[in-house]
Amino acid sequence: MRMSKLFLRTLREDPADAEVASHRLLVRAGYIRRTAPGIYSWLPLGLKVLAKVEAIVREEMDATGAQEVHFPALLPREPYEATGRWTEYGPNLFRLQDRKEADYLLAPTHEEMFTLLVKDLYSSYKELPLTLYQIQTKYRDESRPRAGLIRGREFIMKDAYSFDIDEAGLAASYDAQRAAYERIFTRLGLDYVIVSAMSGAMGGSRSEEFLFPCEIGEDTYVRSPGGYAANVEAVHTPSPEPVEAAVVAGLPAAYVADTPDTPTIESLVDVANATQAKPDGGAWTGADTLKNVVVTLVSPTGARELLVIGLPGDRQVDAKRLEAAVFPAEVEQATAKDLASHPELVAGYIGPGVLGPNGTPRDSDGTDSAEGAVRYLLDPRVVDGTAWITGANAAGKHVFGLVAGRDFTADGVIDVAEVRVGDPAPDGSGPLELARGIEIGHIFALGQKFAKALDLKVLDSNGKAVTVTMGSYGIGVTRALAAIAEKTCDDKGLSWPVQVAPAHVHVLATGKDEAVFTTAEGLAAQLEAAGVEVLYDDRVKVSAGVKFADSELLGLPFALVVGRGLADGVVEVRTRASGDREELAPDAAVARLLELLAGASA
Amino acid sequence: MRMSKLFLRTLREDPADAEVASHRLLVRAGYIRRTAPGIYSWLPLGLKVLAKVEAIVREEMDATGAQEVHFPALLPREPYEATGRWTEYGPNLFRLQDRKEADYLLAPTHEEMFTLLVKDLYSSYKELPLTLYQIQTKYRDESRPRAGLIRGREFIMKDAYSFDIDEAGLAASYDAQRAAYERIFTRLGLDYVIVSAMSGAMGGSRSEEFLFPCEIGEDTYVRSPGGYAANVEAVHTPSPEPVEAAVVAGLPAAYVADTPDTPTIESLVDVANATQAKPDGGAWTGADTLKNVVVTLVSPTGARELLVIGLPGDRQVDAKRLEAAVFPAEVEQATAKDLASHPELVAGYIGPGVLGPNGTPRDSDGTDSAEGAVRYLLDPRVVDGTAWITGANAAGKHVFGLVAGRDFTADGVIDVAEVRVGDPAPDGSGPLELARGIEIGHIFALGQKFAKALDLKVLDSNGKAVTVTMGSYGIGVTRALAAIAEKTCDDKGLSWPVQVAPAHVHVLATGKDEAVFTTAEGLAAQLEAAGVEVLYDDRVKVSAGVKFADSELLGLPFALVVGRGLADGVVEVRTRASGDREELAPDAAVARLLELLAGASA
Repeated sequence: MRMSKLFLRTLREDPADAEVASHRLLVRAGYIRRTAPGIYSWLPLGLKVLAKVEAIVREEMDATGAQEVHFPALLPREPYEATGRWTEYGPNLFRLQDRKEADYLLAPTHEEMFTLLVKDLYSSYKELPLTLYQIQTKYRDESRPRAGLIRGREFIMKDAYSFDIDEAGLAASYDAQRAAYERIFTRLGLDYVIVSAMSGAMGGSRSEEFLFPCEIGEDTYVRSPGGYAANVEAVHTPSPEPVEAAVVAGLPAAYVADTPDTPTIESLVDVANATQAKPDGGAWTGADTLKNVVVTLVSPTGARELLVIGLPGDRQVDAKRLEAAVFPAEVEQATAKDLASHPELVAGYIGPGVLGPNGTPRDSDGTDSAEGAVRYLLDPRVVDGTAWITGANAAGKHVFGLVAGRDFTADGVIDVAEVRVGDPAPDGSGPLELARGIEIGHIFALGQKFAKALDLKVLDSNGKAVTVTMGSYGIGVTRALAAIAEKTCDDKGLSWPVQVAPAHVHVLATGKDEAVFTTAEGLAAQLEAAGVEVLYDDRVKVSAGVKFADSELLGLPFALVVGRGLADGVVEVRTRASGDREELAPDAAVARLLELLAGASA
Repeated sequence: MRMSKLFLRTLREDPADAEVASHRLLVRAGYIRRTAPGIYSWLPLGLKVLAKVEAIVREEMDATGAQEVHFPALLPREPYEATGRWTEYGPNLFRLQDRKEADYLLAPTHEEMFTLLVKDLYSSYKELPLTLYQIQTKYRDESRPRAGLIRGREFIMKDAYSFDIDEAGLAASYDAQRAAYERIFTRLGLDYVIVSAMSGAMGGSRSEEFLFPCEIGEDTYVRSPGGYAANVEAVHTPSPEPVEAAVVAGLPAAYVADTPDTPTIESLVDVANATQAKPDGGAWTGADTLKNVVVTLVSPTGARELLVIGLPGDRQVDAKRLEAAVFPAEVEQATAKDLASHPELVAGYIGPGVLGPNGTPRDSDGTDSAEGAVRYLLDPRVVDGTAWITGANAAGKHVFGLVAGRDFTADGVIDVAEVRVGDPAPDGSGPLELARGIEIGHIFALGQKFAKALDLKVLDSNGKAVTVTMGSYGIGVTRALAAIAEKTCDDKGLSWPVQVAPAHVHVLATGKDEAVFTTAEGLAAQLEAAGVEVLYDDRVKVSAGVKFADSELLGLPFALVVGRGLADGVVEVRTRASGDREELAPDAAVARLLELLAGASA
């Protein structure tokens, strides 16, 4: 490749909409270009990197025995209707109609289609296990596309699906994919943490995410010194043991006290300490209060339901944990209209008395209605026998010493309070730390959800029809590319590892001396003859400074600079990542580059 | 690849919806599978062929210096609005809205996006010429998807776009792409005819189609002994010289005669011969009659307009020529409602008197209205001074000797009559023959249509902004694959040329003898070590007959059969296309296959 002909324009200015380094630099270096929100075009250099990332993914998939197929992106509604996902995906799904007004979608993932294809072709346990995959363009109408390729609306995914006759088979298929993912991310040069995950839309029994640890990541996960790691959504808070009956029996009766102007936990704690003695003689803290948070759940069909979540006052509800817990419903703030038929909910002073089973009777189907009590779920820490300060359902009043199980009950448990640094890991492996990461892979032991919905059965060795057990395994290919850029870039530009770089060596001819260009051209040819991919900056009338800046921005792993030193018989070999520079005779420089490349690929 | 593990099921029955051999066999052989009308999934063997076809296209594109990029399929409306194609594409365009109700489309072709990208990056004539391409999934909501991959709604296209500063540059870019297309189709093993074409939706000055000659093709083209070749839509009918004034002066006056029960040209000719003498004493024929055909044009915005086409009664209107001539309007049969406000159109007896400039005055904007006369266009053969029998606008009456130019005029010319075998080629190169073909490539010298609409200018050598001149060049990649299948298949199945076959040699182990399987396995390994792609039929409990049938259906170029003969020290080498069989010692068979493969790739 010659820069004089390459379809490229580097930008000195950051694009206005770019929040993260990979996005900023991929655009500035002319690898990608924004076409619409969350939708990008690939320019020549970007497409070369993408092809190399895809090739590594493909090789490792093939090595597991997975077979590549390719499904359309434009799919009919019916299979997604059968599994409920046509509705469940809500506004994240791009939907359209064809000229005959038949419903179609742009596939966000292809479980349904793979299930139907296997059903179409296979009928016996002898044909299993089977793992199929594709590297394909996917669509999700994200509400907030952001960070360039990291959260886009059109993106490339590798999705694989395993089909087994039983759970043991699924476990083996799952492990094979998990191991392949470890090899893939290692080859791509991406660190990863494997965290337990909620399976969300997928259902199923086991699910893990591969996260690239990174400050700008959207996924928060926790880890413990003992090796526990989980997506924040998946952290399970163990309930403390219930308080012993004898202790509960000794607890004083609850009483209502005036607590004017205490709409917040902080103000409540202040007033409590100023006016009410704590039975154990200590000071009241936020952990003594039971906060009741009102939200509205919107089901995929659009039905709205109020929900109150009771949790210790020193903890917040974590929005992502809540979203995951109530899926497929979505969470919205309760509107004035939602609240209008519930005058019993006194803002800032809500308490259990009017909620859930302690409230007025609800409809027989258990759902909320204008006449019924609002559903009430409690944090796992609020075990029977614990005493709380909580709202008395009247402005300016709280109740003190209200005992769970004795004075109130709830409709159930919901584990959506924030996870905090220092919380104990659920497996006893020590205090949790928080970290952020980008989800680059996700593997699911789906089980039979899709096979049941679409009736995928095969005959077992006794001739009996049994439902197939499935797994699904995704890698965000374009997102992984962005993660590599994010990891390796610096303030000067991109810095690709050899295995995914658009070319290996950037040959720069600087100055105006014709001998420089002749020598550079010869060295480029020598390198190419040795199988090295070269980008040759042969531009005339472009200053050395601009060429150096472009070279650092484009981020090829090595550069060979032919310039002023040539008069003294030397050229310069530069290593982008380390910044190392070596002056060498031209032939020695070629040999050195071959050595560096061999070392980098090893 | 081993058949025992390959995700494949061959079918003995033809799929019900398959009209053509390639479709039937690609489905039966497990290469593709229908997902929705005109939308197909690719199974492992099909995907391997597709990858090889793509690789050949990519190599030849790269060899022209064209640079590969990749655009999204999901695109915003605005650029297509700017060029008018959002509307022009009519119901062929898949349109959708995102969650914010912004309009999007699934791109049928990407002229707009390439134009905008070049505008975004380039600004000087020094950066031109430039040719960019992509191999990408395209969408068209065909009204009649058919013939499997030949006319689909989601398909893969290679589309390239050239950018030049002037017409001479465009001509050079066009010729380079044209030459690359010749190499591509030759390498794919596809015969092709290059025909002049209408540029249709594209506008522009020069346009040629690459057709694969084939009975099942949807494109009819004409050719002459002297080398003329054109798409039927593009055939230009030369007008005869106008009749000399002196001759016209001697023509008798027109007169109306009763011609009851003559709704067809045949019945009219019969009645004319029975009741009216022809001035030259001969017999009336269909060529003496002027037939007036009513159609409705529907504009992209949905407006309906009646149009009457006058042409010699012995010719039919060609639907495709008409469609191309009135593009972007679409043609429909005139409905009773369309006709209701035009009682002057008497079915079977329509004549010029009530039409076009001879009719009652029309609206000032020239369009049809309930009060105005219907637009009237004439075949080029109806030159001034020619005399005709035509409708008298009253049931059961025709007018005889009505002279064009003397007695009636029209709004213009429309060249949409059928082209017939034996018609003279427009370039005088002899009588035309008709043939059918599949359009596998199309190249357009677009000129400035898109650059003007989207304001793509660069500075020329004088620092003056000039509009760029473009070309666009498409290959239907999935369609070309189907054309190869169509060309090479026979009644037993597919028969791939080596360069696109999913593998080179099909090794078959037949019988139950363990030595057969051991030997077959060893020979497969030997071939693979020599770089040969092998599909090994290692299935046990599958009869030799089924294996042979599958092998012929899958259509690998060569087969190596290890079976009964092994006891006598021989195996069989089969060539799929010729049916040749040779018995050889195992090692000699491997050598022979290497020789055959070298010959086939040469």
